[in-house]
Amino acid sequence: MHSYRAPLQDIRFVIDHWLQAPAAWAECERFAGVDSALAQQLLEEGARFAEQQLVPLNRPGDREGCRFQDGHVSTPTGFRQAYQRYVDGGWPGLACAQAHGGQGLPLLLGAALHEVIYACNHGWAMYSGIAHGAYECLRQFGSAELRQAWLGKIVSGECLPTMCLTEPQAGSDVGLLRTQARVDEAGAYRLTGNKVFISGGEHDLTDNILHLVLARLPDAPAGSRGISLFLVPKLTEQGRLNGVHCTGIEHKMGIHASATCSLSFDQAEGWLVGEPQGGLAALFVMMNSARTYVGLQGLAHAESAGQRALAYAQARLQMRAVLRPEGALAAAADPVAFHPAVRQVLWQSRAMTEGMRAIGYWSAHLIDLAEQAQGMARQALEARIALLTPVVKAFFTEQGFQLASDALQVFGGYGYVTESGIEQTVRDSRVAMIYEGTNEIQANDLLLRKVLGDGGEALQALLAHVLEEAGLASDAEGMRWAQQLRVASDGLQAWVGGLVEHDDQEYAYRAAGDFLQALAMLLLGHAWARSARLALVHADQPFYRRKRQTAAYFFDHLWLRFAYRLQRLHAAQLPLPFVG
Amino acid sequence: MHSYRAPLQDIRFVIDHWLQAPAAWAECERFAGVDSALAQQLLEEGARFAEQQLVPLNRPGDREGCRFQDGHVSTPTGFRQAYQRYVDGGWPGLACAQAHGGQGLPLLLGAALHEVIYACNHGWAMYSGIAHGAYECLRQFGSAELRQAWLGKIVSGECLPTMCLTEPQAGSDVGLLRTQARVDEAGAYRLTGNKVFISGGEHDLTDNILHLVLARLPDAPAGSRGISLFLVPKLTEQGRLNGVHCTGIEHKMGIHASATCSLSFDQAEGWLVGEPQGGLAALFVMMNSARTYVGLQGLAHAESAGQRALAYAQARLQMRAVLRPEGALAAAADPVAFHPAVRQVLWQSRAMTEGMRAIGYWSAHLIDLAEQAQGMARQALEARIALLTPVVKAFFTEQGFQLASDALQVFGGYGYVTESGIEQTVRDSRVAMIYEGTNEIQANDLLLRKVLGDGGEALQALLAHVLEEAGLASDAEGMRWAQQLRVASDGLQAWVGGLVEHDDQEYAYRAAGDFLQALAMLLLGHAWARSARLALVHADQPFYRRKRQTAAYFFDHLWLRFAYRLQRLHAAQLPLPFVG
Repeated sequence: MHSYRAPLQDIRFVIDHWLQAPAAWAECERFAGVDSALAQQLLEEGARFAEQQLVPLNRPGDREGCRFQDGHVSTPTGFRQAYQRYVDGGWPGLACAQAHGGQGLPLLLGAALHEVIYACNHGWAMYSGIAHGAYECLRQFGSAELRQAWLGKIVSGECLPTMCLTEPQAGSDVGLLRTQARVDEAGAYRLTGNKVFISGGEHDLTDNILHLVLARLPDAPAGSRGISLFLVPKLTEQGRLNGVHCTGIEHKMGIHASATCSLSFDQAEGWLVGEPQGGLAALFVMMNSARTYVGLQGLAHAESAGQRALAYAQARLQMRAVLRPEGALAAAADPVAFHPAVRQVLWQSRAMTEGMRAIGYWSAHLIDLAEQAQGMARQALEARIALLTPVVKAFFTEQGFQLASDALQVFGGYGYVTESGIEQTVRDSRVAMIYEGTNEIQANDLLLRKVLGDGGEALQALLAHVLEEAGLASDAEGMRWAQQLRVASDGLQAWVGGLVEHDDQEYAYRAAGDFLQALAMLLLGHAWARSARLALVHADQPFYRRKRQTAAYFFDHLWLRFAYRLQRLHAAQLPLPFVG
Repeated sequence: MHSYRAPLQDIRFVIDHWLQAPAAWAECERFAGVDSALAQQLLEEGARFAEQQLVPLNRPGDREGCRFQDGHVSTPTGFRQAYQRYVDGGWPGLACAQAHGGQGLPLLLGAALHEVIYACNHGWAMYSGIAHGAYECLRQFGSAELRQAWLGKIVSGECLPTMCLTEPQAGSDVGLLRTQARVDEAGAYRLTGNKVFISGGEHDLTDNILHLVLARLPDAPAGSRGISLFLVPKLTEQGRLNGVHCTGIEHKMGIHASATCSLSFDQAEGWLVGEPQGGLAALFVMMNSARTYVGLQGLAHAESAGQRALAYAQARLQMRAVLRPEGALAAAADPVAFHPAVRQVLWQSRAMTEGMRAIGYWSAHLIDLAEQAQGMARQALEARIALLTPVVKAFFTEQGFQLASDALQVFGGYGYVTESGIEQTVRDSRVAMIYEGTNEIQANDLLLRKVLGDGGEALQALLAHVLEEAGLASDAEGMRWAQQLRVASDGLQAWVGGLVEHDDQEYAYRAAGDFLQALAMLLLGHAWARSARLALVHADQPFYRRKRQTAAYFFDHLWLRFAYRLQRLHAAQLPLPFVG
């Protein structure tokens, strides 16, 4: 059975050509030593680790799951050893500053590595996936003492962090949380309350776990403004057991190997991160990278599912096809890859997956650039990241699930059977549409906060960027696609203009989901226009010829979704009754 | 936690008003004694059975699954007792002729009952779901001796049948099957071969199991023309153990309670059903009702998921809504049912589910009518059934899965947790897109065989029927919707006209999936135009007012999918390269 291979050629195409990242690195002091060859070597090594260590644990981990007993959580067989190898390889510190013991490499490379890791074993990757976000949060908001005590341990992988937001009554609505932080006689913060759905809240990969916990100080105002962020280690710096207890783990549809914990905080000692009542501000620092990483989970599942569907479709013989490729031998039955319905699934999978890779990596690359930039340039980059992030999170995760289900369909009855492995991909991928802010929350964030919040300025700049690419088209096909992009950009901008003038306060909320879809399609259009243009030069090589073909499939077939979404945006003007 | 309630009011609306079935029954000799009151009483009783006996077994059955040991299969705890109650209630013979010990009631009522049963426990229903199709097949093609020996036992529920088509190398392509039937010295047929994915191939609900097996006679031509159908009982009429062995069961994504068996036939005695080499013709008799029943599984999951999403959305409080219904109290957080993104999910679920119910029941009702009709009238009815069946099978099952996933999303993190039950619905519903002919096979069957096979005649008659309903609209809204239907019907007909003139033999195959989607939307448009017109008269009653609101949601928002599909149909003209 075919198993996943890291798509290193396409990853390199995106990093080196689509983004031209090495040229940008050369201009940054921090990344001056990083070039294309180093990036490639590193990703090859990372892919080797993930393919050899994590793929073999993926299906067994799903079957075995985590065990909970007496407050302790055991991860599936082999998980701890694989984590130790990950630590030994220095992977946790890949994109962390050298000053903290990291390798100081671009986040973009961390993102590419994580795409591969998620594709190999989503459950395993849950334990370490949040570490970089926690590192950034602590680096920017932690006191000198906190940074001194813990940053190095995150970077080395000695400690794994968690993010403790959700409580039974407070999911999407963090403002409803009740966990209390009081100051004891010694002047220390003591946290008391219950958290649920905490990924990696307890496990046996590391001895210590660093919980980043949202809680309320006494007399804090109600709602989300009254929330503060605390660092609550499982074991204090002195090695004392703190008052954090795991009270159970969830039985879930998928990612069985990831321990989803209920935690009880009982007078647990905590350290304030950032300002009192400044919890959400500090947490939002984690969000751009954390949500981008969740988006990469969707991309990873799409890539992995597409690879396996293609391999199966080429091997499985059923029925004669109407047409077959030149040179294919006539047989009692053809590979199902010859049948038009299957070809459509395979092209669609490729067009969506490779398009998403360009956009997702762009997002990560912009985070690197923003960190090096100053003033207006930095603000502009941050505004663009803010726009891209909800699209990456929501659209990619939805596509990851959808394309996994499409791939399952290619397997027919075998796809529904556990043995094929593809049904696990469908189950595992589903969660990413929910956590780190549901996809509906992302859509509201995109349209209400990111687009309307600055009067449409960041969106306009993004559309201008898309049109700039359109202006570079030089061949007949590319100019046709460029024209499609121009019409779409005008249509979207006109719609936003109409929305702003509308006085129905609910209109934007009714339109948010379709707006995210429309913008995502436009961004994929941008990705494919640019990829196709770059591929023109090498159109004699199979990789680049395939890029051109995939671009054509995208614009000829998938592109129709943009117009559909724009029509739905206009229909969202109509009032929407309450459901009784 | 809310659990499923059979939607008896809507079922009655469809049967009594939308279909006006009681009036049609009154004109049929066979159903002359059946009226609306009897139908309602029967469905209430059936719903009571299903809600009380099957719902409590659904989640435990998923957790426990089936066990295989030494060739025997144990179904989950309670399954055998529930089946005995089903038998005691006379439910297996509901729509079977009184001459064979059945109740002689319309298949439509069997279909309605099965929607409810599937919604309560898909896994359990797998064992009996195929019985009616097997009954019809044997009734029409079995010899007098076979009918005498076995029909009564199917009708009483003493024996459960299976359908043994698939072999490891022969899935969608039945023509590749290798199971052999030879004649022994005594003149009996002896079958040898291996079958896989046989639902209920072995179990402990009944002592005997009747396998309907496709196999090849010696010297049969290759491909599907050389296939014959045999009845192979687990125990012969004399109670002798036949050569059928269960060699294992599959571990699957869902329907864990349904035993999906590998069967080995080793010189098993079989009896020919129908003509030698006439196996597929005999089997196709099972197909229309079997595929309609699979479509009802999609409908059932959609209804059940929608009910639970609504109940959860009304109970779960998160965030203030922009608007709230008149009279709703201001609180720290509103029911998520007030939030626009959730309202869209709930309206969409209702519009799709109720629209599908009308179309699915119509299909079942037409099967009843066709059986009573003669000559040209019967042919016309059969042609319409043939058109509707692949739409019901493919579109409903896809929607069942999609709407279940949408409902899961409403639950947020809780939806991903096993305890909520909704993730089981997502997993269970997924299989229906695959079995009884994958949805891709259905699409090819619809466009290539059912539409183009008769030069578009049956399609034209169906579209004329839709336009007839459009012509009955009398209010302003209804006339607007009628106009939308007319434009769509013209568009679809024009596209088929263009297709026929095209000389690219692959065009229809590339277009088949989108054609099925477009026709399904047109049929739902028909369903809603008719429902809305019938609801006008009672628009002061909540049930009917809601029908009007749902119709408006359908035509204002969901209807845009039709134009999208029509655009994709035109784009299917473009050549589609092979994937390398």
